[in-house]
Amino acid sequence: MAKASEGRRLPKKDYEARVPVLRAELVKMQVALQHAPFPVLLVIAGDEASGKGDVVNILNGWLDPRGVETFAFHDPTDEERERPPMWRYWRSLPPRGRMAIYAGGWHTDALLADPRNPRELADFDETLRRLAHFEGLLADDGALIVKIWLRLSKDAQRARLRDLADDPDTAWRVSPADWKSHRDYDRLARLAERMRRATHRPGAPWHVIDAGDPRCRNLAVADYLVARFHAHARARKKIPAAIRPRRTVALRPAGLRRLHALALDQRLSESAYEAKRDKWLGRLNRAVRAAAEQGRSIVWVFEGWDAAGKGGAIRRLTSAIDARDCRVIPVAKPTDEEKSHHYLWRFWRHVPRAGRVTIYDRSWFGRVLVERLEGFCRDDEWRRAYAELNDFEAQLTAHGIIVLKFWLHLSNAEQLRRFRHREETAYKRHKINAEDWRNRRKWPAYEIAVGDMLALTHRPHAPWHLVPADNKRHARLQILKVSCKQIAATLET
Amino acid sequence: MAKASEGRRLPKKDYEARVPVLRAELVKMQVALQHAPFPVLLVIAGDEASGKGDVVNILNGWLDPRGVETFAFHDPTDEERERPPMWRYWRSLPPRGRMAIYAGGWHTDALLADPRNPRELADFDETLRRLAHFEGLLADDGALIVKIWLRLSKDAQRARLRDLADDPDTAWRVSPADWKSHRDYDRLARLAERMRRATHRPGAPWHVIDAGDPRCRNLAVADYLVARFHAHARARKKIPAAIRPRRTVALRPAGLRRLHALALDQRLSESAYEAKRDKWLGRLNRAVRAAAEQGRSIVWVFEGWDAAGKGGAIRRLTSAIDARDCRVIPVAKPTDEEKSHHYLWRFWRHVPRAGRVTIYDRSWFGRVLVERLEGFCRDDEWRRAYAELNDFEAQLTAHGIIVLKFWLHLSNAEQLRRFRHREETAYKRHKINAEDWRNRRKWPAYEIAVGDMLALTHRPHAPWHLVPADNKRHARLQILKVSCKQIAATLET
Repeated sequence: MAKASEGRRLPKKDYEARVPVLRAELVKMQVALQHAPFPVLLVIAGDEASGKGDVVNILNGWLDPRGVETFAFHDPTDEERERPPMWRYWRSLPPRGRMAIYAGGWHTDALLADPRNPRELADFDETLRRLAHFEGLLADDGALIVKIWLRLSKDAQRARLRDLADDPDTAWRVSPADWKSHRDYDRLARLAERMRRATHRPGAPWHVIDAGDPRCRNLAVADYLVARFHAHARARKKIPAAIRPRRTVALRPAGLRRLHALALDQRLSESAYEAKRDKWLGRLNRAVRAAAEQGRSIVWVFEGWDAAGKGGAIRRLTSAIDARDCRVIPVAKPTDEEKSHHYLWRFWRHVPRAGRVTIYDRSWFGRVLVERLEGFCRDDEWRRAYAELNDFEAQLTAHGIIVLKFWLHLSNAEQLRRFRHREETAYKRHKINAEDWRNRRKWPAYEIAVGDMLALTHRPHAPWHLVPADNKRHARLQILKVSCKQIAATLET
Repeated sequence: MAKASEGRRLPKKDYEARVPVLRAELVKMQVALQHAPFPVLLVIAGDEASGKGDVVNILNGWLDPRGVETFAFHDPTDEERERPPMWRYWRSLPPRGRMAIYAGGWHTDALLADPRNPRELADFDETLRRLAHFEGLLADDGALIVKIWLRLSKDAQRARLRDLADDPDTAWRVSPADWKSHRDYDRLARLAERMRRATHRPGAPWHVIDAGDPRCRNLAVADYLVARFHAHARARKKIPAAIRPRRTVALRPAGLRRLHALALDQRLSESAYEAKRDKWLGRLNRAVRAAAEQGRSIVWVFEGWDAAGKGGAIRRLTSAIDARDCRVIPVAKPTDEEKSHHYLWRFWRHVPRAGRVTIYDRSWFGRVLVERLEGFCRDDEWRRAYAELNDFEAQLTAHGIIVLKFWLHLSNAEQLRRFRHREETAYKRHKINAEDWRNRRKWPAYEIAVGDMLALTHRPHAPWHLVPADNKRHARLQILKVSCKQIAATLET
């Protein structure tokens, strides 16, 4: 971490000479940012009374307010509490070409836990690991992350608190809690140090600035921001924009083997299906209600070949669930708002509240399927995605959300039959187009990508269920059964 | 209102013969909807125990779940409570080409108030007026609004509640409150009737369906939906898509006169400005904090000629406000998500929470300025907009939000001077382009539109403040002063 320079005092005259120059630099930066292919995240954190709020306000005064948004994480709202803890940070992320200033950032939220015993410290470390992952994810996506820690020595803190308390205009800003944390300075400083170490990573380093002299502090923050911006913009230019679709070599052949081992000739007669369907729909209905009563939400993920029957399977599911608590999210081309964010942002948006259900018809796995094969992302990006997807799902399950993932598998011949049937049936013709035929020709490549996905994102809390889908009735019943079982098993633990 | 047909009983066999036909019709409708230039809002409301939830679930089973979303308005979340009551409905609106089903709709929310005395009834009527306006606004924008009331006679209600209570699988659905409302049947029916009358309008009529026979009920709902959809799609085709910019004739010459009467030669020296600026910034800071302490939010709206200094004025304002509680929303071209909604949707999105500040840099008035003059909307649309904008602002102020509107006025010569200055100054060149020059040539037309806006949207609770902006210092100080005064005056009342 960069060292703070202590003890300097900058005369007002020198400060006032520097400010207009720096402001011009900041505005120049903002003009460049408008067309930059990345967002800027500026975190202003620091010791108590180091002037985080002042710095944020001063920066906002210097910057053009258009294109900058400031976030402070007050107490979570109930909409936030009902989702995994990172949800509120995801919803605050700026799109590419824009900047967000975080007063305190997620780091101050984490420090508020104020861990005191080994168990609390372990939780704290786990939170920090999650924050580091979050920042790494964004940095990998190209975001510029500037994290500043304003350091104030214990003596300077005491002096600052006294100054504030003595001035009738600012006395309201000093609370008994501030004095308490002043007396606890050394322990809190160690905790902050632990936090910074755990979240100091390439792409998201901490920069410590001494806050003893407010004028020096303000200039140092702005200087550092401008310098980081230009260095980042230069470095980004070197990343090749052109992308060639990746040659398809399996990363983990085990997944492909699992796929090929699936028996596709399983059949279920109409009478056998109808005899069992209602029983399982009833069970599913009760399972979903039991989950809701415990405040647990359910996320279904449906992936599968074109024409594998995802829509029909989802329809059977929803017929057993109260529609008022259930959303189906069809995942197609992202909107332009979605495109200007990290690829996971559009899925975080729809994470259900406590006790609700979200069904994703196609999902985040598009990153390692269509995006991998069509070259919509770089090679390093889809390779990295497996870990990112696992972490995303781990956050859902850690929050108590039940994640049910299905791959609907089809034989190549059955797909052909269904495509032809769609073309021949008037009211199904809208479901088939040239792109479906084009994707069909890439079947072997897709198979490899599917295999890798199954092998690399099959996790104990969010396992993949492979469903032979050549027979629709068999597939639908299996989905119902497996869903009931996984929900029941999760609720029991 | 359409009459309900009572007393029919449909044999199961006939029902099962009708369902596949109807489902095919529904899917055909959904395919057509995908490319339709309007959204579909389906409200399923009705008497207690009439099977609203069942109908919603059955429809969801029949429809392709992709493209349909269901909303039920449970207790408002704190994020919702801190905004005007209609905010939660705005955020649930489907984009064009998609459908939302509202279980109960906003109407059921309104009935929950259960007004019993004249004062409560007056509030109830006011709520209904607001709902009618909301629906009218959406209908005018082309939305198809299908509102169904499921009617159940008192005898049928008693029988239905008994059936539910007797079956161990459904007994949980009958609460003591249900029996209480059954005993109160007549009064509640009159209240519902009053609600339906008040919100039965062209473009959003109520259709009453007898819910005595569940099978008849289900078919009648789906039939009506399909019929309304096709009638609406046909009617929409007759609306001319081509738009010619409106010849610019003032609707209310008084506004233009007010604009021309403004003295633009007011000057303020640098020393006079600096002597007063800090005092007013301090006052503004205290005023904003005082508002926040009362849980009141503030919305600033800045409109004005290109180069009138909106950005600079906003920057002065924000320098006095804690950036952590303040958002600046620059209003430029809408995103594609925004374009697929009613034009007010993008402004509703950013309405501040209690105690926060939103500053709109350009605003909803674009509808009656640029959209009017460039032909981005039809003649009837911008003419209607004045009332819509007034209602929007009335909802904000009724919720306690302080609305501050500024028009920054410039002489034609001063604009020319500033445009040239921008072109000559390296770090300002990005602020001027061909479109600015093009708009400048339309000055007289814009003046007329501005005049109409000032005349037609100047309201006691959200007045327009005209600011002579040829002298930036004078303008900035006036904005500070006027803002302080309006905030103080509002807090005192």
